[in-house]
Amino acid sequence: MSPSIALDVHAHGHHSETLKKDAHVTDKVASPKEEQLVLNTIRCLAADLCQQYKGGHPGTVMGAAAIGLALWRYEMRYNPTNPEWFNRDRFVLSAGHACLLQYLYLHFSGYEAWTMDQIKKYHAPIMGGSMAAGHPEIEYPGCEVTTGPLGQGISNAVGMAMASKQLAAIYNKDGMNVVDNKIWCFTGDGCLQEGVGQESISLAGHLGLDNLILIYDNNSVTVDGNIDACFSEDTSAKLKAQGWHVIEVDDGSNDLAAILEGFDKAKALKGKPVLVNIKTVIGHSSKKQNTGAVHGAALGDEDVKHVKKSLGFNPEDQFVIPPKVYDYFKECKGKGAAAEAEWNKTMEQYSQKYPAEYKQLQMRLAGKFAEDNWRELLPSKKDLPTAPQPTRKSSGIAVQALVPKYNSFVAGSADLMESTFVNFKGQVDFQNRLTILNLKPESGLGDYSGRQIRWGIREFAMLGTANGIAAYQKGMFIPICSTFFMFWLYAAPAARMSALQGLRFIGIATHDSIGIGEDGPTHQPIALVLSLARKVRPADAEEVMGAYEIALDDSSANTPSLFCLSRQAVPLLEGTDRHKMTKGAYVVYGQDVEPELTIVSSGAEVSRAITTAKALSSTKKVRVVSMPSQKHFDAQPLEYRQSVLPTSKSLVVAIEAWGSYGWARYAHASLSMHTFGYSAPAEQMYEKFGFKPENMASKIDAWVQKWKTESRLPSVGEFDELLLGYAQH
Amino acid sequence: MSPSIALDVHAHGHHSETLKKDAHVTDKVASPKEEQLVLNTIRCLAADLCQQYKGGHPGTVMGAAAIGLALWRYEMRYNPTNPEWFNRDRFVLSAGHACLLQYLYLHFSGYEAWTMDQIKKYHAPIMGGSMAAGHPEIEYPGCEVTTGPLGQGISNAVGMAMASKQLAAIYNKDGMNVVDNKIWCFTGDGCLQEGVGQESISLAGHLGLDNLILIYDNNSVTVDGNIDACFSEDTSAKLKAQGWHVIEVDDGSNDLAAILEGFDKAKALKGKPVLVNIKTVIGHSSKKQNTGAVHGAALGDEDVKHVKKSLGFNPEDQFVIPPKVYDYFKECKGKGAAAEAEWNKTMEQYSQKYPAEYKQLQMRLAGKFAEDNWRELLPSKKDLPTAPQPTRKSSGIAVQALVPKYNSFVAGSADLMESTFVNFKGQVDFQNRLTILNLKPESGLGDYSGRQIRWGIREFAMLGTANGIAAYQKGMFIPICSTFFMFWLYAAPAARMSALQGLRFIGIATHDSIGIGEDGPTHQPIALVLSLARKVRPADAEEVMGAYEIALDDSSANTPSLFCLSRQAVPLLEGTDRHKMTKGAYVVYGQDVEPELTIVSSGAEVSRAITTAKALSSTKKVRVVSMPSQKHFDAQPLEYRQSVLPTSKSLVVAIEAWGSYGWARYAHASLSMHTFGYSAPAEQMYEKFGFKPENMASKIDAWVQKWKTESRLPSVGEFDELLLGYAQH
Repeated sequence: MSPSIALDVHAHGHHSETLKKDAHVTDKVASPKEEQLVLNTIRCLAADLCQQYKGGHPGTVMGAAAIGLALWRYEMRYNPTNPEWFNRDRFVLSAGHACLLQYLYLHFSGYEAWTMDQIKKYHAPIMGGSMAAGHPEIEYPGCEVTTGPLGQGISNAVGMAMASKQLAAIYNKDGMNVVDNKIWCFTGDGCLQEGVGQESISLAGHLGLDNLILIYDNNSVTVDGNIDACFSEDTSAKLKAQGWHVIEVDDGSNDLAAILEGFDKAKALKGKPVLVNIKTVIGHSSKKQNTGAVHGAALGDEDVKHVKKSLGFNPEDQFVIPPKVYDYFKECKGKGAAAEAEWNKTMEQYSQKYPAEYKQLQMRLAGKFAEDNWRELLPSKKDLPTAPQPTRKSSGIAVQALVPKYNSFVAGSADLMESTFVNFKGQVDFQNRLTILNLKPESGLGDYSGRQIRWGIREFAMLGTANGIAAYQKGMFIPICSTFFMFWLYAAPAARMSALQGLRFIGIATHDSIGIGEDGPTHQPIALVLSLARKVRPADAEEVMGAYEIALDDSSANTPSLFCLSRQAVPLLEGTDRHKMTKGAYVVYGQDVEPELTIVSSGAEVSRAITTAKALSSTKKVRVVSMPSQKHFDAQPLEYRQSVLPTSKSLVVAIEAWGSYGWARYAHASLSMHTFGYSAPAEQMYEKFGFKPENMASKIDAWVQKWKTESRLPSVGEFDELLLGYAQH
Repeated sequence: MSPSIALDVHAHGHHSETLKKDAHVTDKVASPKEEQLVLNTIRCLAADLCQQYKGGHPGTVMGAAAIGLALWRYEMRYNPTNPEWFNRDRFVLSAGHACLLQYLYLHFSGYEAWTMDQIKKYHAPIMGGSMAAGHPEIEYPGCEVTTGPLGQGISNAVGMAMASKQLAAIYNKDGMNVVDNKIWCFTGDGCLQEGVGQESISLAGHLGLDNLILIYDNNSVTVDGNIDACFSEDTSAKLKAQGWHVIEVDDGSNDLAAILEGFDKAKALKGKPVLVNIKTVIGHSSKKQNTGAVHGAALGDEDVKHVKKSLGFNPEDQFVIPPKVYDYFKECKGKGAAAEAEWNKTMEQYSQKYPAEYKQLQMRLAGKFAEDNWRELLPSKKDLPTAPQPTRKSSGIAVQALVPKYNSFVAGSADLMESTFVNFKGQVDFQNRLTILNLKPESGLGDYSGRQIRWGIREFAMLGTANGIAAYQKGMFIPICSTFFMFWLYAAPAARMSALQGLRFIGIATHDSIGIGEDGPTHQPIALVLSLARKVRPADAEEVMGAYEIALDDSSANTPSLFCLSRQAVPLLEGTDRHKMTKGAYVVYGQDVEPELTIVSSGAEVSRAITTAKALSSTKKVRVVSMPSQKHFDAQPLEYRQSVLPTSKSLVVAIEAWGSYGWARYAHASLSMHTFGYSAPAEQMYEKFGFKPENMASKIDAWVQKWKTESRLPSVGEFDELLLGYAQH
């Protein structure tokens, strides 16, 4: 191993920070033979473990072995004995396929004293416990977040850096640092190509997050082969243009000293996030090194032997970890314990001097956002505005009531703050004060203590960073993210990851149907089913309060929620009830009627459904049900469900200005959208597509007559679409 | 108006191409008084038209008036009398809110001789015909594509530039240029922040698309106010790092000469796409210029009067277009007609010298991809492999049979080509030969004639560019795009736009359920409902052939399709039939049985459903239905639907390893997924979640017994989930 330092000889070197030799750093690497042994061991293990199951991703493990060594042996601050220590550095593996790398170093540094049999099992593609089979998963100690699909890990890391900066700004006092950790993110080419990665990089540069270090494992190879076939930009120059510090390392598969020097410098740099762009050789030491063949497939028996032979291991031996490897990492535990002990001492002093802040912090560490009865802060129904107003505006009432008071909330928007009503009185922008100094006064002031986040026009990164904020310390933050419903489709892949990991956010999805006016069909979300976040579509201000009560209940600690809110005004309905709505659906009109017909509806259409019910001539025995949440309704016993929607006894019809998909479970027919919309004001739209109450009443009357004549109820499979004739565009 | 040229004095000027004074350019702008009159007229009109409806987006129209003048009066090649002329420049308005700008210049340059009443109507937020109410819509002459949601317009433009490059490479001969147009894309800050915009910029830089000119209306203001609050990167430097030429103009609201010089230069530059970064003043001449207030709201009566007064118009007059404005654009028609006439002459010669190519081009211009019977190229069922194989591999058979033969197809992947089987024999990469020269041989050679597209790890841009390719000339291209099903969620917002515009693509979504192995739960799309593209989930190789027949049928010319394909092998089933499947669902097992029980299934689960049917003890009168497409089934008459799924006569149960949402329309119960999955091999996954045939048979037996005891069928609302107990994670 050459101990030479990369001195900016890279082709794009003129963009990078120049590395200078630093005695201190070079001192660190005092035993090159031992280090080489660690690297060789990792490479042979990667080859063996993948070969055993004839699958896996050996290439990055072999190529980035030295990066891993630098991180877990020297650079990161963590306590292997207490992986959950609050002020630890966070490591986010955005290049999820490299999870075996992380897993092996977690083992060496002492997180878990697995036996080789356990190591094999944990890497095996078997049910459960397969920590390193495919992607890092949040369930395992040392895995901070499930990154999975490419690009999202970068946004998670940016979110963690935001969380850390904000906690520091709020809680650190007089040199007592409650939070002063670093966020390390390991990325490959893939995450840098993904839009969400780029949005997040842009945001991190804007926010000047100097606690974030992005390690680019620059191996130029992806699944389909050489990256030059689809990617030819100068990443270092690009990130410099986006407000990042850039450090380059030329030989990251061998030159440990240069890596260490780069990381040391990255930790010291101020004012901007840092990219450490490290050239590596994917599949280092394999015959197929530097090709796509080593990315996502085992090397094959022959090549595995070749690797061992060339690294000085016995080709016949498998799964070998020389004791010296463990020796080399021995001091990690002591170092980690000492760091935590020091922090504990600081916390002790802090608790004396700042008991209120300390108490709040402890509460948040325990996953609570309030000690008092926060529900009382939401206005009761009699105190809600009686004049019709959009449900998005009603949501603003809840935001204003809760967000300023509890530090756990951060609230913001992808550039639609005024439209989504997530801004609140006394808000402070979450901003880097240095950035802010360049702003014009109209932009508002801000610093890292701010809890109002301007995510920019970056919906996917908004949710990806929200996941990072939520995963930073589970339960410590509740992000409120907002944009038009249609743009939630941009963010959907991250919302899916929130649900998969049980990370709570509150999503505000406004402009939720055809009543949105001039933005037209491209912005009308008539057939978006985001089935992974829990959707709540409140009918009026009262149900909006109920939506917040559901989302913030302790039982929702691991559940993200998405509120679908109207752009247009809706009246406060007599029959709505925030408590009854927790069952998903309940009667809002005709409570005392034994119904011949039930109309079930949601959101902005509920008041229309009531008007429609009153206009019917076929029957006066009609009730209207508001169904803000299908998922909550599904969780009720059959008896309750049939008492609200008596589909086995009488006719049930749905009214919703969305697609009809899914309604057949709850109703015999629906009045739904069957095509994309138009650019027009809400009322014209509702009329055009048949949602005028008089028209709906006449359609429903005819349908009721038909089934009265048949003297039976429609069976499964006979679902009717009563507005199908409005499908022509 | 100052005729001075911006000479690189911008803060980031050192990154930009230096503009030099050019007599020719300055000559163009020979009548500054008339030009000022045009700009003033546009600004007053924007103010009036928005004020009339108390809505709209006046700011960009007023700020970018000079850019529009430069484009439609001088720079773009088009024929107002024949907006569909094939070799016209394409203009893509990615900043969709500025559609009034485009609309007014289309009028001035002679597309349509609207009266002022018509102009008002076309800008009015009314039903239909509201061309400029919100966003540009493809239905209107002069609007090349519906850009709508931010960021996608850039990807559409990149797709059009790809289409143009490829047609040129295939058809241009001996200096006879069938295609040699430019693609102009107008973007604001928003589209540049969106991930899809960034992915597309990266791809365009890689491909060296020098027929693409991206105009950045750099006004630094978005909905939420000053862009500095969320975006602080150096866009020019960034795009340079991504392989773009960059030209900067400092005063784009006034300095027409500099704009013209910039555009002239942009047209002449070679080898790379060109960014023209133009500083403008949003809401120019309004009291609120340079603020978010003029972005998406009318100016107010007082400010409208102020605008007119300061621009020399009578504040009391409304909707004024001085005749001199029309005079100024008079020659556009003649210029356009001459350009088309010249092209027609070229085409005449071309038809003589290259009759075969000419004929093919005419066929494609008519929206056809084949003159022969392409169905015969697909192997018949008896010629399909009998050994089990993944449906993604079966799809590869169809790709291989069709794609090489017909130039209308372009096929590619977001870095998963080997996994999605869209590569084909004799393939040539679509690449800029200049880029390719830097590639290692393993990357394969390529040039712009290639029809194999390496989109990189950019799923959203893949679909966004595919929409641009499809919209370049409707029916001329059929893009085949591929990635894992889970990553289609990244691309979903673009797939939605395909459906909205009726742009055909074939989407290959592999790894479509839990049977995907080590990638684990993050990659298992158990609850993704992309309800806007037409989904087809074939059960075996025969149904895969049927899927292609459906997608490529003439009746699908305006319909995108998404094929959901298995990673794991499935057998060729006796009962499958590519013709019967066009009805969406049909009987594949137990055709002659009067069923007591029907099992309906799709995709990789159909063969399991058949095994389950054979293992039942509760009844032997059982049939199995394959339902590759719910949408096609819904379109059948009730009689057919009940003949296949007799829900009103006997029990029907669904088996599908996705979420159960939607099944209640077709069945009384389902065996579905109720949680996220695990990292494990396919067989273990199916067993873990209850999809082992023996287990399914026993669950169904118990359910059948229950309803036999009840002596009735489940009614609507009594839908059962037979694998709900497998929900624990």
